Amino acid sequence: MNYFSSDFKLGILGGGQLGKMLLAETRKFDIQTFVLDQSPEAPAQYGCNQFFEGSLMHFETVYRFGKMVDLLTIEIENVNLEALLKLEEEGLPIYPSPKTLHQIQNKGRQKDFYADNDIPTSNFKRFVSLKSLQESIKNDELDFPFVWKCAQFGYDGTGVKICRSALDLVKLPDVECIAEDRIPFKNELAVIVARSVSGEVKTYPVVEMEFHPEANQVEYVICPARIDEKVAQKAQEIALKVSESFNHIGLLAVEMFQTENDEILVNEVAPRPHNSGHYSIEASYTSQFENHLRAILDLPLGNTASKVAGIMVNLVGEDGFYGPVVYENIEKIMAIDGVTPHIYGKRETRPFRKMGHVTIVNENMVEARKVAEEVKNSIRVVSV
Amino acid sequence: MNYFSSDFKLGILGGGQLGKMLLAETRKFDIQTFVLDQSPEAPAQYGCNQFFEGSLMHFETVYRFGKMVDLLTIEIENVNLEALLKLEEEGLPIYPSPKTLHQIQNKGRQKDFYADNDIPTSNFKRFVSLKSLQESIKNDELDFPFVWKCAQFGYDGTGVKICRSALDLVKLPDVECIAEDRIPFKNELAVIVARSVSGEVKTYPVVEMEFHPEANQVEYVICPARIDEKVAQKAQEIALKVSESFNHIGLLAVEMFQTENDEILVNEVAPRPHNSGHYSIEASYTSQFENHLRAILDLPLGNTASKVAGIMVNLVGEDGFYGPVVYENIEKIMAIDGVTPHIYGKRETRPFRKMGHVTIVNENMVEARKVAEEVKNSIRVVSV
Repeated sequence: MNYFSSDFKLGILGGGQLGKMLLAETRKFDIQTFVLDQSPEAPAQYGCNQFFEGSLMHFETVYRFGKMVDLLTIEIENVNLEALLKLEEEGLPIYPSPKTLHQIQNKGRQKDFYADNDIPTSNFKRFVSLKSLQESIKNDELDFPFVWKCAQFGYDGTGVKICRSALDLVKLPDVECIAEDRIPFKNELAVIVARSVSGEVKTYPVVEMEFHPEANQVEYVICPARIDEKVAQKAQEIALKVSESFNHIGLLAVEMFQTENDEILVNEVAPRPHNSGHYSIEASYTSQFENHLRAILDLPLGNTASKVAGIMVNLVGEDGFYGPVVYENIEKIMAIDGVTPHIYGKRETRPFRKMGHVTIVNENMVEARKVAEEVKNSIRVVSV
Repeated sequence: MNYFSSDFKLGILGGGQLGKMLLAETRKFDIQTFVLDQSPEAPAQYGCNQFFEGSLMHFETVYRFGKMVDLLTIEIENVNLEALLKLEEEGLPIYPSPKTLHQIQNKGRQKDFYADNDIPTSNFKRFVSLKSLQESIKNDELDFPFVWKCAQFGYDGTGVKICRSALDLVKLPDVECIAEDRIPFKNELAVIVARSVSGEVKTYPVVEMEFHPEANQVEYVICPARIDEKVAQKAQEIALKVSESFNHIGLLAVEMFQTENDEILVNEVAPRPHNSGHYSIEASYTSQFENHLRAILDLPLGNTASKVAGIMVNLVGEDGFYGPVVYENIEKIMAIDGVTPHIYGKRETRPFRKMGHVTIVNENMVEARKVAEEVKNSIRVVSV
């Protein structure tokens, strides 16, 4: 198949920052792209060949979009699966497959999948509703504390709550959900696996999420993780097993806990480029976005090793600021060697909205970590 | 000035591959861009915020384009200077300045500039026409061999001819020209200098053009150049001097000869991102395109050092092939670690047309050079 400067068209469902960064690679290879997103301000409306405004959850919209392209991929999981299943039936290649998306979209099904495939994960119980979860507590079948997760459409921290007592249940929505054991972990790790149509597989190095010591928030994504080589190897093996069990095509980001006694438990997966792989644009021989593209087009996978140490800092809107965004002190951080801001292109900031990220690279990890802290303490996402 | 996700608009004159690669950086920073190019198939029509089709040499077109933007830059020298001068007079910042473009556009004026500013360059004579050059030969004021260069609008080898006898003059156009001494050189080198509005200056490492042993064609651009440290230092000092003498803002690519006795002579300059800096996308901490943007926006310049050794191979159309392009064996080279093709997005190939380039990076230069040869011997730009 000739993808380069040809009539071949790749369709991308979703036009957020992941789509935008994926487009940087399609432009590099001059591969034609169509993008569908419901927002007229979608970051990925620039850099594609054609942008379509429409709902990703609407059967007709997704189906008709799919009929215009030669291959379909996603940058967000929440898409209309019925449309994808029909398109696939009619012969359109879709990576990741609708079947995998179906398994992953629902966190209960995702957990069942791990259990069925001998993939280590925390203990959990599924509930059709909050009511049935409350029943379960009443009947002493579920004990506090536990982690409540809504089964579907959670995103970036919404849809997750640590429940210590009945009080914590009061404001939860009455939706399908799971209750998980709370895992006291040493580290939160992630491994991105690239797997191509013909089954070539490569894993990126294990990355580590470093949390703020007080606020329970990821501050830095650090590559490579500063962990024992044996633990890293175990994490990579498990991530590979997850990718193979799903028979996954494209990128799969596997988030894991390293427990107090160095067990690895899979937390959840994302079947696409992922926040934990953004460092790869500057630090890796081949970025996660390029490898997603290579995988779904069945091109040879690129080298996932790093040229230098990489740390990623998310740029999220400061609490209390709404409206046209200003990146305070961005000039200051750009004056530091090895610092690259990525601005996603959202005109308006809101508290905790993901507005961009900053990558810090350095030959030396200790130095990179110092610079990352300086970056974190300098830049502020506020409004005019 | 707030450039990021703001109303600020950068205008780019020219929509070729240099414009396209510059847009990758404006997208990363979410800086709004308008692009003007005469071709409806311009590679940079995607990735900008608005594309305008029109002639870069047409006063009204360039002037009206300039009135829509807040800052103007170029990706090609051959633009209407009268329009730029009027826009500058009316207060529009233009980098590089029309004055510098005026000095560089004409190779005779460029050579005079070197002479006037004590910048080492080969001996030369200026002629208003071919006729007056022939006169000069008749009067024994000019001897064979010499290098003929048309003074204006030459590009990539067209407009240059080595003249060994009167026979070589027969097919030359009757235009303003220069005759230069032919320099027997050890190496052809280049240094890219970034200089910002407020005068911050950084130079990229010296790169080396490696020629095919038989065909007189650059095969590889190699960074860093495999030359003596003292020679490299001299080349960088001279490049800096050229940039400062022009009072240049933005990138200036300075092409130089290293003579048999290690003199450095300036050959010519390009006031913009340059083919000799394409390796920087994969090999450098900050690519030439990002630094051009930083320089003209008066942001701090990024680190010009390399993470790894880089070699660039141009992808030009094979002789004898015309029409819809096919990149033969591109999958084969993509299977090699550290190999990244860049496909510019020209649908039709022609003999020797610049269609793309391939970057090879490796921690080890010897290994990179081996891979570069493998790449060069594998990929072919042909037509369907």
